[in-house]
Amino acid sequence: MTIEQIKETEQRFLDYVNKISHYEEAVGLMTWDLRTGAPKKGIARRGEAAGTLSSEIFHMNTSESMKAFLSELKTSEAWENIQEVTRRAVLECEENLKKFENVPPEEFKAYVILTARSEAAWEEAKESGDFQTMLPYLEQIIAYQRKYAGWKGFKDHPYNALLDDYEPGLTVETVDAVFSRLKQAIVPLVEKIQKEGAAPETNFLFHPFPKEKQESFSREVLKSMGYDFEAGRLDTTVHPFAVGLNTGDVRVTTKYDEKDFRTAVFGTIHEGGHALYEQNISPQLDGTPLSGGASMGIHESQSLFWENFVGRHINFWKKHYPVLKNYAAGQFDDIPLEKFYRAVNAAGPSLIRIEADELTYCLHIILRYELEKALINGEMEAADLPEAWNDKMEELFGIRPSHDGEGVLQDVHWPGGAFGYFPSYALGYVYAAQLKHAMIQDLPEFDKLLEEGRLKPVKDWLTENVHKHGKAEKPLDIIQKATGEKVNADYLIQYLTDKYSAVYKL
Amino acid sequence: MTIEQIKETEQRFLDYVNKISHYEEAVGLMTWDLRTGAPKKGIARRGEAAGTLSSEIFHMNTSESMKAFLSELKTSEAWENIQEVTRRAVLECEENLKKFENVPPEEFKAYVILTARSEAAWEEAKESGDFQTMLPYLEQIIAYQRKYAGWKGFKDHPYNALLDDYEPGLTVETVDAVFSRLKQAIVPLVEKIQKEGAAPETNFLFHPFPKEKQESFSREVLKSMGYDFEAGRLDTTVHPFAVGLNTGDVRVTTKYDEKDFRTAVFGTIHEGGHALYEQNISPQLDGTPLSGGASMGIHESQSLFWENFVGRHINFWKKHYPVLKNYAAGQFDDIPLEKFYRAVNAAGPSLIRIEADELTYCLHIILRYELEKALINGEMEAADLPEAWNDKMEELFGIRPSHDGEGVLQDVHWPGGAFGYFPSYALGYVYAAQLKHAMIQDLPEFDKLLEEGRLKPVKDWLTENVHKHGKAEKPLDIIQKATGEKVNADYLIQYLTDKYSAVYKL
Repeated sequence: MTIEQIKETEQRFLDYVNKISHYEEAVGLMTWDLRTGAPKKGIARRGEAAGTLSSEIFHMNTSESMKAFLSELKTSEAWENIQEVTRRAVLECEENLKKFENVPPEEFKAYVILTARSEAAWEEAKESGDFQTMLPYLEQIIAYQRKYAGWKGFKDHPYNALLDDYEPGLTVETVDAVFSRLKQAIVPLVEKIQKEGAAPETNFLFHPFPKEKQESFSREVLKSMGYDFEAGRLDTTVHPFAVGLNTGDVRVTTKYDEKDFRTAVFGTIHEGGHALYEQNISPQLDGTPLSGGASMGIHESQSLFWENFVGRHINFWKKHYPVLKNYAAGQFDDIPLEKFYRAVNAAGPSLIRIEADELTYCLHIILRYELEKALINGEMEAADLPEAWNDKMEELFGIRPSHDGEGVLQDVHWPGGAFGYFPSYALGYVYAAQLKHAMIQDLPEFDKLLEEGRLKPVKDWLTENVHKHGKAEKPLDIIQKATGEKVNADYLIQYLTDKYSAVYKL
Repeated sequence: MTIEQIKETEQRFLDYVNKISHYEEAVGLMTWDLRTGAPKKGIARRGEAAGTLSSEIFHMNTSESMKAFLSELKTSEAWENIQEVTRRAVLECEENLKKFENVPPEEFKAYVILTARSEAAWEEAKESGDFQTMLPYLEQIIAYQRKYAGWKGFKDHPYNALLDDYEPGLTVETVDAVFSRLKQAIVPLVEKIQKEGAAPETNFLFHPFPKEKQESFSREVLKSMGYDFEAGRLDTTVHPFAVGLNTGDVRVTTKYDEKDFRTAVFGTIHEGGHALYEQNISPQLDGTPLSGGASMGIHESQSLFWENFVGRHINFWKKHYPVLKNYAAGQFDDIPLEKFYRAVNAAGPSLIRIEADELTYCLHIILRYELEKALINGEMEAADLPEAWNDKMEELFGIRPSHDGEGVLQDVHWPGGAFGYFPSYALGYVYAAQLKHAMIQDLPEFDKLLEEGRLKPVKDWLTENVHKHGKAEKPLDIIQKATGEKVNADYLIQYLTDKYSAVYKL
């Protein structure tokens, strides 16, 4: 090929992936709309329309055109003459293709239908706590996941194939090491604060706090984090999320519980952390498959950084507690800051992951990880899940669910087929603690910045070290470059030990 | 072809048009979002994404696959063995195809870019009243429209080709006849009320009326019209519109002027009329090109029916005035119903079409129609527009714009290339008066229904005679079947004469 031909092929490839990004933007908006206020009678047809566009995306990602682009651009003469961003986009498309290359189309189609039905059945099964109605679905989903690992290919452990979908490059070996360190540290710490700690008083948290006031406060907090309302908006939903439609349109959703303001405040900060990530990806990556988060874990590192390392820090509240008091209907008037701070950091064993505190959260993930690994490995079957779940709850938390609705059926992930996803939650937390440690080398005045409400340097550091790269860097490379280390659980353990020893006055 | 093969082709055709409808739903949502709250930094990329999907729709509508479907399904053996709804969909697709069949693709592409630029330039030209900056755009647009009429083909008058795009089957001959009757009746009526009429007092209309209260009232009115909030929602925008994403999701937008509550109230009723139409199209037509309004004129007949024949009727306010009073901040407390009714029906010459009253509205349309026809016919050139516009304003209204921003530049239609569109506004009004006349034959208790706020029979009559057909019937057939007549301006003239003689106490 002549240089001119190479440039021409490169441009056609970039146009092609740009077109895919346009379809993704449409589907993203349709999903956002479905979850924030689409009228219910239009939902069925909307679902079909989104399905049509999603199939088209799948088709474009795996088409003969895509394969031709990749093979043409990967010839050594082309490779040397295309831009770096194109090279990374090519590699990303290749990874994407690999996921599906060996999946028999009929099996994939049947699986999409299966998980749609399974998700639909799940709501009711969770409500009634009836595991048996979910069992046939889970059996088929797990059977598919086992086959999928084989189709995709893996080294050492079939679960590695699934991990890699959510956290490229991550292996069972690493997760085992990190999670076993966390377990060894957190389980005894939780026991200790329960037995020897001074439990914070929390009842004053649950007084009525009008929605509109919560919303105003949430908006102020988002602004102080550096969230750009000219490139996003805040809406209400049932299961909060953030979504980047493009880097100039990254939306946050939240929900308001008038009896527990923490839901909205910490939920908004969490989703705001996800949104800051997507707002600050380099515009150079716009319209390529690299304009997104590097992985689920890196994404979660951003939401958890803001939720926990900023939002649950005493100095953040030195600045924001007076503001919160202004919005609240008097419930904090007689509560000193220290008492408020300890209350919002109360921790202890609980049954439900999404309601868990920052200390015990990882244990919920470890439980799921251990079960998933055994299921994919064939050491365990779907039918064994309820018993195994409850036993592990007892082992890790010292409590047992009274029914499967508050146990094995609580999350939509398995009914939806998302095996390999859970570890990224805890891993993101580990990353966040590592990033915090690295950040304070550059910003030793971190605590003071929080106290003064000057969060821009914090955001800028994250943009420089994480956000801007989008998907152009691999997650483990981002962590290595930003922190100078591989994944390391020590910083999180240190943080939790120090913080909870103080909060519980050990 | 065997019956089985025919059935199979029919199904593939229905799947194909269903897919097109899914793309249209996505573009519709993207447009709604852009106009109701999308953050401004995301607009540029959103526009590109919507452009990509729109091109795809154009491509599917004019593709070789589409042509093959049409020719296969139109063979006499296929035609007799497919469903009626498929036959109508085939005819609709054929019409659609005809519009573009002979348009040279390069010319079309250049024209799309031209009108996008022209629309962008228009905002500023309107603001500054500078016609010269728009002139080169208008010259090129008019040149294209003249060629387009030739490519599409026409009988008698090239403007017929353009009319037919918005009002299938309509001709200059009909419009000339209808509009000349209207002109002859309305011009002297307007003069008479100005000279001899008792002008209603209106200053009490313009007191501050809080937005939230206006919104609550607007919602009540929409509900009383039978608008289904489970199949729609109400949002705020700058230029109000209604949009049917699917029959279960038909959205209304409005705007609130705190100094003039009429903007929101009559605007919401107007858009609500459009929305009722789309909510009540037969679900049998879902996913076909027939699931939409029959024409711009029929659509406008629905919005104007509700806005004028219901919303500006004294009996509507017998029911709703007390409700409005409750929401208002005291501004109507001392105003009797009769005085209020006359005030919201004040009429007279004005420069701006979108602010015109129901009496003079048609004259604004007639002015545009006469100019468009002369432009397309080659009797006039774009450069002649300002002078011709101002002369016609003088002839029809007795007033002259002080600059082109409040004259020839006021509407986006011409800069956007929408020649042939304007007549449907006035035609819709004529249809609405005809429908009203036919309706009271079946519902002689019409006035009483309004007084009691029982609007369901009114909505049901419109659903039965208009809404349910969607695009499966031609506009002129709908009017013929519903009213037993061709287009007839008499009913509108009678309505306006009677009403304004009373309001102005002639």
